[in-house]
Amino acid sequence: MTLTLHHAPDFASTIVRLALEELGLPHTIAMTDIEGGALASPEYRQVNPVGLIPALETDDGPMFETGAILLWLVDRTGQLGPGPQDPDRAAFLSWLFFTSNALHTAALALFYPHRPAGEANTDAARAAAHDQIIARLGLIEALIAARHPRWLSAEQPGVLGYYIGILVRWLILLPPAPYGLDLAGFPNLRAVLAAHEARPAALRVAKADGLGPTPFTDPRV
Amino acid sequence: MTLTLHHAPDFASTIVRLALEELGLPHTIAMTDIEGGALASPEYRQVNPVGLIPALETDDGPMFETGAILLWLVDRTGQLGPGPQDPDRAAFLSWLFFTSNALHTAALALFYPHRPAGEANTDAARAAAHDQIIARLGLIEALIAARHPRWLSAEQPGVLGYYIGILVRWLILLPPAPYGLDLAGFPNLRAVLAAHEARPAALRVAKADGLGPTPFTDPRV
Repeated sequence: MTLTLHHAPDFASTIVRLALEELGLPHTIAMTDIEGGALASPEYRQVNPVGLIPALETDDGPMFETGAILLWLVDRTGQLGPGPQDPDRAAFLSWLFFTSNALHTAALALFYPHRPAGEANTDAARAAAHDQIIARLGLIEALIAARHPRWLSAEQPGVLGYYIGILVRWLILLPPAPYGLDLAGFPNLRAVLAAHEARPAALRVAKADGLGPTPFTDPRV
Repeated sequence: MTLTLHHAPDFASTIVRLALEELGLPHTIAMTDIEGGALASPEYRQVNPVGLIPALETDDGPMFETGAILLWLVDRTGQLGPGPQDPDRAAFLSWLFFTSNALHTAALALFYPHRPAGEANTDAARAAAHDQIIARLGLIEALIAARHPRWLSAEQPGVLGYYIGILVRWLILLPPAPYGLDLAGFPNLRAVLAAHEARPAALRVAKADGLGPTPFTDPRV
């Protein structure tokens, strides 16, 4: 399996990099000059027509969308999440899609509020996104507390732990006051993320991407 | 396989109903009284903690998220999309997640612009969502024109055809002027959706849900 990840440090491609490192899959990192306009180049649009990172080039062609890439890696390796015939698959897929289209999209709306609401309305958009995010993280906290899913646990690594870990990192670091996340209100989630960020694979990526020693639970830039 | 779909006609659960009918899978329809507050009941939150439809009760527990349910059905039946080891899986997953978190979420922002932007800013939010939707449908049109993917084609049914079909239905019907979609600008997509809406399974669901004879390409209420 030949894999090339189009990447910029501390962007969503870091989520995929964490999974690749945890899986021990050999891969090439293609650094993407986002500020230099690389995502708009015709060459890059051949890899990812949407013009975002991550993109992962595979033997089966290029992939985009963080959730799609993570799921493809789970299915091709049989690791970091329940496989297609596993009874846990139903819940795992539900929460993976939820993370992608309810948590990740709301986080982007909080960081870039002009996109959904226009330049004149960023305060209202930021407040709406923040409320959504707190409610949605509350559902994930309740899930972990009630069900202890093995695919989002402190006992073993999983793609969802890394995905939510990076989103939580940004939610703590990036929003202006009073919208920064306080992870103290989410102790079960915090324990899962603390276990993930302490893994050797995560430490290697944190060093390479400059994420600091505790990138999810106490992030620094 | 015992399956119960929590459903209301012409909501996102119709997408799952189309897939179940196309697959010929026996299932029970549990009609959901949305206006009566059924989605907020404690009983329903046990099925879907997010409080939306669709939810699908399965032998492996309840599922939510349209894209997750569609993918689970593909994997359990081996139909309506490429399986985990298929070389087409990489592209299929990328576009399924894209449809879920870029097209479906933008459509919801167009229909309910107060959610991302607050009650005072709905005009700007609607305009932003409309621009996103046209650009994203343009990427899907270009995909079909250039690649002719068998998993989004007029030659065979697929979950993505039904998913995009219902979204396009709503994008034509629901937005106030000038934001209604004109499908004439997307001829390749239109042909795929015309083939899907003409299938016997789609005609049965259109009748049951009251969607009219051409629910995707010339929708009526």
